[in-house]
Amino acid sequence: MPDTPPEIDRLIDLMARLPGLGPRSARRAVLHLLRKREAVMAPLARSLAQVVLTARDCSVCGNIGTTDPCAICADPRRATGEICVVEGLADLWAMERGHAFKGRYHVLGGTLSALDAVGPDTLRIPALVARVQAEGVTEVILALNATVDGATTGHYLADALAATGVAVTSLAQGVPIGGELDYLDDGTIGTALRARRRV
Amino acid sequence: MPDTPPEIDRLIDLMARLPGLGPRSARRAVLHLLRKREAVMAPLARSLAQVVLTARDCSVCGNIGTTDPCAICADPRRATGEICVVEGLADLWAMERGHAFKGRYHVLGGTLSALDAVGPDTLRIPALVARVQAEGVTEVILALNATVDGATTGHYLADALAATGVAVTSLAQGVPIGGELDYLDDGTIGTALRARRRV
Repeated sequence: MPDTPPEIDRLIDLMARLPGLGPRSARRAVLHLLRKREAVMAPLARSLAQVVLTARDCSVCGNIGTTDPCAICADPRRATGEICVVEGLADLWAMERGHAFKGRYHVLGGTLSALDAVGPDTLRIPALVARVQAEGVTEVILALNATVDGATTGHYLADALAATGVAVTSLAQGVPIGGELDYLDDGTIGTALRARRRV
Repeated sequence: MPDTPPEIDRLIDLMARLPGLGPRSARRAVLHLLRKREAVMAPLARSLAQVVLTARDCSVCGNIGTTDPCAICADPRRATGEICVVEGLADLWAMERGHAFKGRYHVLGGTLSALDAVGPDTLRIPALVARVQAEGVTEVILALNATVDGATTGHYLADALAATGVAVTSLAQGVPIGGELDYLDDGTIGTALRARRRV
């Protein structure tokens, strides 16, 4: 734009690269920041700078936190012998929001995909096998997305872990809580029927 | 969230306050930043810190830039004797994107509103009258939103500027470029008909 300071133009460009924001909404966000410089922009700038400085990958599980090993790997109460395998950080956060899992995690960093040329060594699969052998793990819980790539990766992991003798389980599939049968796809209904349980 | 570092939780909270982002999309944005720490997060943090340090209000027109007076007020080529009055910074940027106005601006900071208790002194109306008297202004162009509050403010400004003898004009109202009559509201069609021009 003519006569807009280049610093502000650059901030709009960078904000527009965030998922969920485009050029127009980035402009709106920056306008909001400029109007609330003390109340919103300065705290956001400080927070962002602090996370840039402190964020680091956990060398054990692949989580991102402020310590290495991360707070979950370092917590002795979570040494339950269970490892939950997730595709990415978003899934780890989703599991934590569920408040149901008390063990440790292993973040693969994606799923096997022939199309995208993602093989076992690109993911953190050898590290998982090594952890299972070294940490006295009794159960590996696969919490992968219910997609074709997720299922492929699950089968591969079960094979790769077979030699270690660890129990490999995966999240149950079925009707989600609050789900209405009328809106569910046929595949989910079929899966839920086959996995029916006595009440 | 349990075991998420407080620094990251706080960043999500702050991002969620931006217009267009809610708690979920702020989390997605922060996940993206954490995964692209070098490529996206560090440049964004630097840019934000720089804008926090350098942004300031122009004491002449109310624009926000990195200098006071702002680049527009300081540009001698824009001393055309025309002042364009806008409600806020967003409207100033919109006018600049139009590349049609070559004079200077005056940002009111809102519109008169009895409901919200916004009076002439809350807005920068006395400063506008003073500028018109001091800067040898020949025309004040009202570029206010076509709303009830915008029209009220326009009438008030015309009265307030009457004593200075300056010409007060406002943006034309009519069919927008690319607009289809079938989708236009009745008020716009009526206004465009009354303001019809010989071709």
